[in-house]
Amino acid sequence: MFPTRQAARRLALQSSRRWSHSVAPSPRLNPVTEKDLAYFSSILQPSSILSTLSPSKLPASELDPYNTDWIGRYKGTSTTVLRPRTTQEVSEIVKYCNEKRIGVVPQGGNTGLVGGSVPTGSGEVVVNLGNMSNVRHFDAVSGILVADAGCVLQSLTDYIAPQNHIMPVDLGAKGSCQIGGNVATNAGGLRLMRYGSLHGTVLGLEVVLPDGTILDLLSTLRKDNTGYDLKQLFIGAEGTLGIITGVSILTPPAPQASNNVILALPSFECVLPLFKTAKRQLSEIMSAFEYIDRTAYDLAVKHGQGRALNDEDVEGAACFVLIETSGGKREHDEEKLNELLETLMTADKPIINTGVMSQTPAQFASMWALREGVTEAVSKEGKAYKYDISVPLSSFKDVVDVTRERLREKGLLGPKAVKHVIGYGHVGDGNLHLNVVADAYTPEIEAALEPFVYELVAKYKGSISAEHGVGVMKTHALHYSKSNTAIEMMKRIKQVFDPNGIMNPGKVLP
Amino acid sequence: MFPTRQAARRLALQSSRRWSHSVAPSPRLNPVTEKDLAYFSSILQPSSILSTLSPSKLPASELDPYNTDWIGRYKGTSTTVLRPRTTQEVSEIVKYCNEKRIGVVPQGGNTGLVGGSVPTGSGEVVVNLGNMSNVRHFDAVSGILVADAGCVLQSLTDYIAPQNHIMPVDLGAKGSCQIGGNVATNAGGLRLMRYGSLHGTVLGLEVVLPDGTILDLLSTLRKDNTGYDLKQLFIGAEGTLGIITGVSILTPPAPQASNNVILALPSFECVLPLFKTAKRQLSEIMSAFEYIDRTAYDLAVKHGQGRALNDEDVEGAACFVLIETSGGKREHDEEKLNELLETLMTADKPIINTGVMSQTPAQFASMWALREGVTEAVSKEGKAYKYDISVPLSSFKDVVDVTRERLREKGLLGPKAVKHVIGYGHVGDGNLHLNVVADAYTPEIEAALEPFVYELVAKYKGSISAEHGVGVMKTHALHYSKSNTAIEMMKRIKQVFDPNGIMNPGKVLP
Ligand SMILES: Cc1cc2nc3c(=O)[nH]c(=O)nc-3n(C[C@H](O)[C@H](O)[C@H](O)COP(=O)(O)OP(=O)(O)OC[C@H]3O[C@@H](n4cnc5c(N)ncnc54)[C@H](O)[C@@H]3O)c2cc1C
Ligand SMILES: Cc1cc2nc3c(=O)[nH]c(=O)nc-3n(C[C@H](O)[C@H](O)[C@H](O)COP(=O)(O)OP(=O)(O)OC[C@H]3O[C@@H](n4cnc5c(N)ncnc54)[C@H](O)[C@@H]3O)c2cc1C
Repeated sequence: MFPTRQAARRLALQSSRRWSHSVAPSPRLNPVTEKDLAYFSSILQPSSILSTLSPSKLPASELDPYNTDWIGRYKGTSTTVLRPRTTQEVSEIVKYCNEKRIGVVPQGGNTGLVGGSVPTGSGEVVVNLGNMSNVRHFDAVSGILVADAGCVLQSLTDYIAPQNHIMPVDLGAKGSCQIGGNVATNAGGLRLMRYGSLHGTVLGLEVVLPDGTILDLLSTLRKDNTGYDLKQLFIGAEGTLGIITGVSILTPPAPQASNNVILALPSFECVLPLFKTAKRQLSEIMSAFEYIDRTAYDLAVKHGQGRALNDEDVEGAACFVLIETSGGKREHDEEKLNELLETLMTADKPIINTGVMSQTPAQFASMWALREGVTEAVSKEGKAYKYDISVPLSSFKDVVDVTRERLREKGLLGPKAVKHVIGYGHVGDGNLHLNVVADAYTPEIEAALEPFVYELVAKYKGSISAEHGVGVMKTHALHYSKSNTAIEMMKRIKQVFDPNGIMNPGKVLP
Repeated sequence: MFPTRQAARRLALQSSRRWSHSVAPSPRLNPVTEKDLAYFSSILQPSSILSTLSPSKLPASELDPYNTDWIGRYKGTSTTVLRPRTTQEVSEIVKYCNEKRIGVVPQGGNTGLVGGSVPTGSGEVVVNLGNMSNVRHFDAVSGILVADAGCVLQSLTDYIAPQNHIMPVDLGAKGSCQIGGNVATNAGGLRLMRYGSLHGTVLGLEVVLPDGTILDLLSTLRKDNTGYDLKQLFIGAEGTLGIITGVSILTPPAPQASNNVILALPSFECVLPLFKTAKRQLSEIMSAFEYIDRTAYDLAVKHGQGRALNDEDVEGAACFVLIETSGGKREHDEEKLNELLETLMTADKPIINTGVMSQTPAQFASMWALREGVTEAVSKEGKAYKYDISVPLSSFKDVVDVTRERLREKGLLGPKAVKHVIGYGHVGDGNLHLNVVADAYTPEIEAALEPFVYELVAKYKGSISAEHGVGVMKTHALHYSKSNTAIEMMKRIKQVFDPNGIMNPGKVLP
């Protein structure tokens, strides 16, 4: 169901060469010196400091994991990584850096996909939260969890599982990413449709501001209307407004049962009525509604990613939908799913050709494998240009068709150029993965796609980054999704929190 | 289920005299003059202007509804009310007021309970959104609704009902309050437990900033990680950062069935295990979990607010819980509720004494009537000091007991002073209504309660205003729920958006 770390790294590497603007080091910031290191040594335990400077003199390779991002595209040259153990230590580090005008890069699990978690070359100090990994409190009655920002997502999942709760966020990187990083990137993931975004489930944050002040907003209240909801600013700010050191989050009760079904549809036009009908009949138990177009499905099957339907069932199918339910009682959920299938099959104008419901955990997993395997299949088929965008549900197919047409016009469609243009993604969240699968990366294809795709997204008032954020990778494209007024207001807010621009320089804002 | 407007007004009036600090008019602002009115006449239709100034010369009484707040406690003296019809008009009004340093009070349905929606006496112009009441777009597939801020909540509910969707927010004032006002106050209400807060369900906003700039954040995307989520700042800002003119909101599919049950508990200690068990067994279908202590229940019964249980069932009950479910299929929900009741009755140490499940819509309504009737009963019993607070679930009873003890110590408990101290509220949201029912309002009782209750709330790291906001009523008490650092950051953000302080002066920030 989830790609492994290796697979994800490889896939991402393949698509990484498309991004080529460079980041100018900020002139106002100073690099870390030996004198600074001496100061850090006076406030931190020796094991909390990694540096190539004297007296530590570690080989640069030891800092590589902190300087290099997950996709291997961005590589910083920081000399010093600090791994504080307490909020107080974070505060003292940041206060000092602010006084000395040293850039600070907050780093969680370093699994971000837009180069936000590594230094840009201004001699920043990396503040890695990995040593702050204690659960502070869990209330099994309310489901409210308070944890250090450095807790790994998987470890929190494991911590609350015996109490029958689950984290409201789940994603492929859960074995490495931290809850602080999830909040800083406003991570979406597999449960967003059901449990909503972190803007709704995060109840409170503890943040060290760029001047070292500790801002305690670590509320455990579901309701609190006393002034501006400041914590919201840090959710998705990608570490540019402060370092998150603690998180309070509402965790839902674990569902008692999960089911899924794969449906073959006669045309794209059936997706939306299907979504509507499923929402009505499955209501609160529908936890995923995933779209796969025919080409994506065929690629997944071709490359051995599962084969959920028989040949005759697939015949005439324009696209596929995977629906998952997570409810309080298996029999009830199955009954609802069966009733849904009946409604669909017996409609005057049938909405589906056929459907298969998983009967065993193995089948459940293999249906997900098909959907999740599209990524793997794409990488086996060729070199992929990948776009993670939000557009209105009704335009999913248009976006794919128009992009394909564009490439055809430019004479770039064919076995030696672009082989496939496919679309798949989370219909429930309006999140489309647009993949252009080519024989090789070429400047022509890149020029045909960008800024074309961004402009297309902008035309639909969509988002150029549905989940992954801006980081250093998309600052130049921010204006396709945000107005000048909005960007100007963001800059002013940045100025309020971080007048010296020390916090994650070069990220998010152009 | 919902108190009528009249009832609510009466109840609120009775408790209004407790608040007595005064608001100093802001020295930097200018009152509206005839010259200003002439300008407004040049940009607005005549019917959009109400003024006591020449040449309009309306009697002041015609402006009373706009100058007086719902609870009748706060009364402004504004000479001019503007009722623009378009975002552009709002923009021109605000731009002008900013240049001329005229205060602006954004006003929706004027149902706010903390005096936020009426002028404080700085000669502000009231900008009432009532004329901006068009639905701009509804997508029945995604459930995303885009509407003018001035749409009345009930009218939006009615608009989407035929499409089988409901608004994620619902409250007693729905016949008058506007969606813009709901967003500006981050209204909670009856559906918060199920659908989460507006911070999660509001997808986008259109806002006129205090300098007249139109900030278009009217996204219809569920996922968009491109920079700071600015719209969040306006949710709950009570009109102090700008005027909301458009709202994009995710509406859930209407549940197919609703059930409820009233349970009598042997002790308060059973509430939390009950909540935990109910959350596990009812999972996604539980939509309300309301707590009523014994005194509150007895008052409701005494004053004829319903009588859900037999005398023998009530005997020995320390408190009561009302559980509501809203699910996709009635039989399934009933089965789950029945199984829950069985678990509870057959537990080694029984968690409930008894329980009654509604069998008909009339019974369903009458069970809610009992819970909702507590407010009415309290007002019939005496004069009520009412606190709408958030505290940890486990301390609901403590807060009530400690407050009662405090009054006893002060010699204020008895038939001629404080008759009852009761607690009831939304366990699911951690929202407790603490009511002190007295024979009459007296300075002694008030002095015994304030700041005592606020300090008590602060001790539990709770919220002094769970839902209703700060307005002008609680600015002086904000520090009980927010640190100085947080208040300082709020002030800086206010400064960024509204350097001249024209937007809703005297509200929210101390
Ligand atoms: C295999 C894989 C699958 C993924 N799947 C998804 C997915 O489904 N949905 C999705 O949304 N994303 C996904 N991602 C990307 C996602 O952004 C990250 O995995 C995760 O949320 C980042 O957490 P992290 O701790 O690794 O943060 P990092 O990568 O360390 O940092 C990410 C950003 O947050 C900042 N940051 C980190 N910690 C803090 C802190 N404590 N305080 C302030 N700022 C901080 C950094 O400066 C950086 O800008 C995936 C990534 C991988 C590798
Ligand atoms: C009977 C009754 C029941 C209630 N029940 C609940 C409840 O269950 N939960 C709950 O949370 N609240 C409840 N409330 C209070 C709640 O705050 C309001 O009912 C509602 O949310 C306010 O909407 P409104 O349009 O009347 O706003 P108003 O009262 O007009 O304004 C409220 C505040 O918002 C600002 N404002 C209004 N419109 C805009 C706009 N377009 N742009 C910017 N600022 C604006 C005003 O300046 C003011 O500060 C109740 C009130 C009543 C009378």
